[in-house]
Amino acid sequence: MKNRAVYMQGTNNMVFKDVAVPELSSKDVLIKIDTVGICGSDVHYYQHGKIGDFVVNGDFILGHECAGVIVDIGKKVQNLSIGDKVAVEPGVPCGKCEFCLQGKYNLCSDLVFMATPPDNGCLMDYIIYPAQWVFKIPDKMSFAEGALIEPLAVGMHAVAQAQADIGKSALIFGAGCIGLVTLLTLKSRGITNIYIVDMIDSRLDKAKELGATETINVKNENVTTIINKLTDDKGVDMVFEMTGSPQAISQTVKTVKKGGTIICVGLGSEKDISFDLGGLIQHI
Amino acid sequence: MKNRAVYMQGTNNMVFKDVAVPELSSKDVLIKIDTVGICGSDVHYYQHGKIGDFVVNGDFILGHECAGVIVDIGKKVQNLSIGDKVAVEPGVPCGKCEFCLQGKYNLCSDLVFMATPPDNGCLMDYIIYPAQWVFKIPDKMSFAEGALIEPLAVGMHAVAQAQADIGKSALIFGAGCIGLVTLLTLKSRGITNIYIVDMIDSRLDKAKELGATETINVKNENVTTIINKLTDDKGVDMVFEMTGSPQAISQTVKTVKKGGTIICVGLGSEKDISFDLGGLIQHI
Amino acid sequence: MKNRAVYMQGTNNMVFKDVAVPELSSKDVLIKIDTVGICGSDVHYYQHGKIGDFVVNGDFILGHECAGVIVDIGKKVQNLSIGDKVAVEPGVPCGKCEFCLQGKYNLCSDLVFMATPPDNGCLMDYIIYPAQWVFKIPDKMSFAEGALIEPLAVGMHAVAQAQADIGKSALIFGAGCIGLVTLLTLKSRGITNIYIVDMIDSRLDKAKELGATETINVKNENVTTIINKLTDDKGVDMVFEMTGSPQAISQTVKTVKKGGTIICVGLGSEKDISFDLGGLIQHI
Amino acid sequence: MKNRAVYMQGTNNMVFKDVAVPELSSKDVLIKIDTVGICGSDVHYYQHGKIGDFVVNGDFILGHECAGVIVDIGKKVQNLSIGDKVAVEPGVPCGKCEFCLQGKYNLCSDLVFMATPPDNGCLMDYIIYPAQWVFKIPDKMSFAEGALIEPLAVGMHAVAQAQADIGKSALIFGAGCIGLVTLLTLKSRGITNIYIVDMIDSRLDKAKELGATETINVKNENVTTIINKLTDDKGVDMVFEMTGSPQAISQTVKTVKKGGTIICVGLGSEKDISFDLGGLIQHI
Repeated sequence: MKNRAVYMQGTNNMVFKDVAVPELSSKDVLIKIDTVGICGSDVHYYQHGKIGDFVVNGDFILGHECAGVIVDIGKKVQNLSIGDKVAVEPGVPCGKCEFCLQGKYNLCSDLVFMATPPDNGCLMDYIIYPAQWVFKIPDKMSFAEGALIEPLAVGMHAVAQAQADIGKSALIFGAGCIGLVTLLTLKSRGITNIYIVDMIDSRLDKAKELGATETINVKNENVTTIINKLTDDKGVDMVFEMTGSPQAISQTVKTVKKGGTIICVGLGSEKDISFDLGGLIQHI
Repeated sequence: MKNRAVYMQGTNNMVFKDVAVPELSSKDVLIKIDTVGICGSDVHYYQHGKIGDFVVNGDFILGHECAGVIVDIGKKVQNLSIGDKVAVEPGVPCGKCEFCLQGKYNLCSDLVFMATPPDNGCLMDYIIYPAQWVFKIPDKMSFAEGALIEPLAVGMHAVAQAQADIGKSALIFGAGCIGLVTLLTLKSRGITNIYIVDMIDSRLDKAKELGATETINVKNENVTTIINKLTDDKGVDMVFEMTGSPQAISQTVKTVKKGGTIICVGLGSEKDISFDLGGLIQHI
Repeated sequence: MKNRAVYMQGTNNMVFKDVAVPELSSKDVLIKIDTVGICGSDVHYYQHGKIGDFVVNGDFILGHECAGVIVDIGKKVQNLSIGDKVAVEPGVPCGKCEFCLQGKYNLCSDLVFMATPPDNGCLMDYIIYPAQWVFKIPDKMSFAEGALIEPLAVGMHAVAQAQADIGKSALIFGAGCIGLVTLLTLKSRGITNIYIVDMIDSRLDKAKELGATETINVKNENVTTIINKLTDDKGVDMVFEMTGSPQAISQTVKTVKKGGTIICVGLGSEKDISFDLGGLIQHI
Repeated sequence: MKNRAVYMQGTNNMVFKDVAVPELSSKDVLIKIDTVGICGSDVHYYQHGKIGDFVVNGDFILGHECAGVIVDIGKKVQNLSIGDKVAVEPGVPCGKCEFCLQGKYNLCSDLVFMATPPDNGCLMDYIIYPAQWVFKIPDKMSFAEGALIEPLAVGMHAVAQAQADIGKSALIFGAGCIGLVTLLTLKSRGITNIYIVDMIDSRLDKAKELGATETINVKNENVTTIINKLTDDKGVDMVFEMTGSPQAISQTVKTVKKGGTIICVGLGSEKDISFDLGGLIQHI
């Protein structure tokens, strides 16, 4: 069984290599990969060779957003069958640390996460994966949609953390993939006032098409001024920062309502991010 | 009935003046003030004439932490009687805005707060106050203790916001009044691992006496290093920042556990406060 | 200005009487009522003269779900103008008790609630009402829709209490008004598995039309059996009991998932309602 | 290595038998049991041979509250060493079901729980146990205290579920082991108004000694009347039902405050438990 993998060799360089398919243990499944999404983090590793403390050493396989078909299953696997269309949870938690036991396994201390050094990703023909973290998708769902469940989950988690509720308003910095899935999630939870910010009109057009109440292009417009106007100087209940841009981050404090919530998903490369906490002064 | 008030006339200047006692309306009480605490904000107004956008214009009476005795009550007052020892809630909310209706009346948009320009404080012999916001204290409680209920409430609110729970650990920046009431509140809620930071040994000695697990003097010690050592590099569950010092604020991110909580009560005079969010990078 | 009111005189008897329009005080508005919804509680008072401890004595005006037009406003009213289409919050809380201060003003100890003895309702031409509890509705919203905001709020509150979240499943006992607004609210919050129970097919047809996943007619079907089948014997995450029927109430425990939530809105006339808690036995 | 076990053979009959010590696998530890607590459920199995659907078939070893010393460890065990004093979590969850993944592993669908048929308990000299669920206790803690950590955890869980907070009041039905650990937990979280009910004076005396505010002996006193008097007819914020007695359960509704919390831990043998929900009638 031939298994081609796409390797990153140093920055800005990709090669094909044949790799072995590891043996299938009793709780694993063998997946024929159909589609792999390219995340901003993949691009960043490819161009810079590292993100924060995670540094690529030697050859490295990118990709952590994938969908495919089950082609073999281990003896003890019960939740999946050969032929199932599946999406894959790219992080495998330890199940034992304090975070796992509290149900916050995304924070697991020993998380093994695809395409995060030293763990390889899924840009190859076949992967072996623990069946527990592989999920059947409906037949009518496309592989591309299946691969996009992982970034969708980022938006869903961000919105859940914000305790989004009908009647609350939202501001999203960034109309890229994560910003748009956040928009979709907010709409699916009944949020109707959703403002979104970007620098690129085509992204904002897409956001408008997907149901944003107002779009704001920071090239031409001042976010704080507009939000103040739209909210009678009260600010919005929830601010989602999806860009990592220091300018955006510093505006989260200026646009959020008293007692509101700021969720920072985008984390920039700058070491120090400034919040003007002075702008929040008040008796508690 | 003579009513002496202590007025601030410009910065660093105090004078006595006699003032009228306003008429008692049906829902008010007349309180003979016994004790007034001096808050950091009082000192700041006295020295600088302003805090953020709140600017003292002309004569101004400081003081918002007070206790005294009821000497007269309005016709409709039922919760208090003449002779009651009382403590006073210094902020009177509107009862109608979205924050009041949600039970977050500390965030009231139309809050009238003692000693916050343009509203005068309570450094005088007698005050008239809405009976709803005056609370009877036990006879055996001293007036000084009664006056300190307001800062105690700041600590209790900070700890409640952090959802403190048995088994969690805490780090407090600042062993002044607010830091110490936070320490006391944490202890009363069953928190047993409480680390506290200051620059002054006498304050840290007091914190130790009140039950702090470890005290850290930042003059001699590196907070992040010590917290990492004490927590096996995990960080603490809750960080309380009570100083407003940019150095302390920037360390909150370095000492908090993944998924933990940072509560900032001290807000400094610096316009921009830096958080090293990059230090938190991880897949969500 | 003529003001006709519809009075209940004893049970099962209604008469028209002219009543005075009370004087408009500074914080009130005068509303010309257009539409009044008839709640199950109105019908119950009309037929039985009481609900629990609330007993109708003498003449009594029913109706608490209403919408109309502002025809006059008090001097201090700022949130409304003459000509506004409005819906009315039928309960006016005290704003001072512990429940009001916590933001749970629906539980106010001194709530004045329309058409709840001894307080009259709104089945008349004109009412005077505190402006704070009158809400502008969009021009394109019908008066009937405006009048139905009150029962809609019951469904929204029930769903909020259940902390409904995407991915959770729901079972609703009762496809009457409250059951259907609960269904609509669940759908608007992204809940996709919603099962609903009733005895009347036409109601269940309406529920199906509004998006129920499955409808169950208890005349022909066993709810517990069906729910077990639909949920692999796990039960649903949230059970909403909107009927007050002892049979329905007793089935809530049999159909809810471990750790799930039961919300009882319908409270029956039976003094004792039986829950088979024994069915829940497990180590905690 | 001799390993005596105490077997229940039918109801009301106990015998000693020698059993093999199972082989130690890499993630297990071998514990020499020192102390085993006797839970109400042990007594119930011993006398009746079953609890609900859990039926004892054939010989059966009781006991699930235990402490002892580590005498051997598997090759991969890192959290424990030979000689450690330990307490044991009697339930081993699967780590994979929806409850485990949400951090509610006490509700695990595949929980293996000591002394719950068909799983044997720990009334023997040596047990093999997964190291993850064995916890080191301080040397100065007695084995009896270690064995009592399990019932203590029941009280701590009950109180956590009730979201106990400073300023709230509590009523506990039952001053047995679970009632008393609930009392202790409430006190450790800063709750100061704690009322406790039982039929046996010596238990109530113990509760008083441990810090109960008021004790109520239902043989002589009416709980509802006393609670109404103590709370100005408001009821208590949190009611803990630890007896399973239908009389107690029916009184939970009569003694809880509007919007309050009832936690039922004791689940009686009666099939149907009556709540007088009618007593709660009000507009929501």
